[in-house]
Amino acid sequence: MTQKIVLAIDVMGGDHGPQVTIPAALDCLRTDPALYLILVGQPERIQPLLSAYRPSFDAGRVRVESAPDVVNMDDKPSLALRNKKNSSMRIGVDLVKRGDAAALISAGNTGALMAISRFVLKTLPGIDRPAIITSIPSESGHFYMLDLGANVDCSAEQLHQFAGMGAIFMQCMQAGSVKPRIGLLNIGEEEIKGNDRVKQAHSLLSADSSLNYVGYVEADSIFFGSADVVVCDGFVGNVALKSMEGVAKMIAHTVKRAVKGSWYLSLLALLSQPGLQKIKQKLDPKRHNGASMLGLKGTVVKSHGGADREAFAHAVRWAADQVVRDVPAQLLQHFEAHLQGHAES
Amino acid sequence: MTQKIVLAIDVMGGDHGPQVTIPAALDCLRTDPALYLILVGQPERIQPLLSAYRPSFDAGRVRVESAPDVVNMDDKPSLALRNKKNSSMRIGVDLVKRGDAAALISAGNTGALMAISRFVLKTLPGIDRPAIITSIPSESGHFYMLDLGANVDCSAEQLHQFAGMGAIFMQCMQAGSVKPRIGLLNIGEEEIKGNDRVKQAHSLLSADSSLNYVGYVEADSIFFGSADVVVCDGFVGNVALKSMEGVAKMIAHTVKRAVKGSWYLSLLALLSQPGLQKIKQKLDPKRHNGASMLGLKGTVVKSHGGADREAFAHAVRWAADQVVRDVPAQLLQHFEAHLQGHAES
Repeated sequence: MTQKIVLAIDVMGGDHGPQVTIPAALDCLRTDPALYLILVGQPERIQPLLSAYRPSFDAGRVRVESAPDVVNMDDKPSLALRNKKNSSMRIGVDLVKRGDAAALISAGNTGALMAISRFVLKTLPGIDRPAIITSIPSESGHFYMLDLGANVDCSAEQLHQFAGMGAIFMQCMQAGSVKPRIGLLNIGEEEIKGNDRVKQAHSLLSADSSLNYVGYVEADSIFFGSADVVVCDGFVGNVALKSMEGVAKMIAHTVKRAVKGSWYLSLLALLSQPGLQKIKQKLDPKRHNGASMLGLKGTVVKSHGGADREAFAHAVRWAADQVVRDVPAQLLQHFEAHLQGHAES
Repeated sequence: MTQKIVLAIDVMGGDHGPQVTIPAALDCLRTDPALYLILVGQPERIQPLLSAYRPSFDAGRVRVESAPDVVNMDDKPSLALRNKKNSSMRIGVDLVKRGDAAALISAGNTGALMAISRFVLKTLPGIDRPAIITSIPSESGHFYMLDLGANVDCSAEQLHQFAGMGAIFMQCMQAGSVKPRIGLLNIGEEEIKGNDRVKQAHSLLSADSSLNYVGYVEADSIFFGSADVVVCDGFVGNVALKSMEGVAKMIAHTVKRAVKGSWYLSLLALLSQPGLQKIKQKLDPKRHNGASMLGLKGTVVKSHGGADREAFAHAVRWAADQVVRDVPAQLLQHFEAHLQGHAES
């Protein structure tokens, strides 16, 4: 029998709340028979949707955990941590802490989710702060990138920690990928470029023989396979990620508008659906929704706030995948061994 | 009679050197009758190409300025400044300084070009360091963004200066655009987000009533018209720009590969050329090549190192446009008046 995967869903989070998160989470039950869900939020909002969307086959695979309060998108993280102990987000993280759920998925306030997760779950030994990591499509596959916004200012030591976490994460997620190539994001590949922090991180990474460090990478080459794991501070990473999303969306809009303005192109687009579908499958941001807060003693996945049903379901599946691959335990084992090594040497 | 525009071209710069820069520059003579060129570089490299490409109608509109030395792409800026006084780059900047040319266009080493330009031309009053600015396509038109890589670490005061320069630049380039909307690039639109420097810059910009400051903007919303001028530090700006380029290139590759792999899509692509051409015209990076080093007492335009003939020609036209619109004089006038105002108050 396959392992039972229990996931907590913060159904109240995100721009659309339960209307999107509940049907999306239930969709995942259909495709993954090992999945069990704890829907965390206001029961009066959950029940009607559960009745409407509940699949006939769930047989006790869904339960509701009542949480009267909600963390809003504009709540200050420190206040959400202090004052919203009965929020769906907090109760969801508590479920992970107690081991009742193997992971939490939330589309809510990123800062609050990070603050609550850090406080409740704590970070791994040797890790100062968690980092946000996700998978980004490249020309020939995909790469992982971190930090994507958890830390607006990072020290060289933190960037070094991110590299270690990213390497383990990728090895877990892609069994068989030995020694992922680590690249440090910079504005030039030459040694003389970059700011002081990046140069210091470069020295630390170069000296760490446990990593397969390939040096500086630029934000254009990463889409063409220059590294498997790209390391940067959270401000830069967040700007890079949003630039990518913005450009991709703008191109899609421009093409759509050009097609709409011409009956000829409309007809061609209609005829070429199967080919276009393939391109869409590769590049569609919905299929890349879900980012993990790496470095915590537990799995917490952040969905895009504006995620729709398909996109939120992808984030749920990405969390389930990490549970199956036992990511937090692997990270813990690695960093404990690492600290042990340091203590002995 | 229209004003005579004399441009200096560093023909040795860029990945392809004179083979690209010379035919590209000569192409511009054809479309702009006011244009005169000074080709700076090694005469033995220039002459054969000039004979091959020289248009019959030029009638003394091209002259060669001999420069025996070349700044290489991997030269350290400080060393290029000190040791390469006979390089095409340095002699080109000297021509601008002496008023023999109204602008220099170079596809060479960005750091060296910045160092030499700053040293020879000096910065405008009240400007600590120049910033790199360019025009970037958005869904409904385009926006300007600076700094794109001249300054890896910027103070809040510098970001404030960039905003002022960006506003004047846009007003010059788009006659009639009163009070461009200035946005400060951040990783969230909420007041609580961002690092300390960005928050300080936000305060400075908010307090400056001469600017039409619209607050924080994110790297995805800028493609949908959230600001006319986007301000950020050079590290972040360079990463954002290269992310955009990388994604756009990856999408183009993916589509091309999908089309190649299917005779059906190939046929459709062939049939839809006119429609695709329109999309290409809007988004083609070649049509957006050319970035200006803003804040100098003179016009210096940096072309992408890998620019081809069409792209380099675009950078030459972008420089000519700035000369016609008298950008450096307008900037000088504004910042002198600004300092005057400060001194009197």
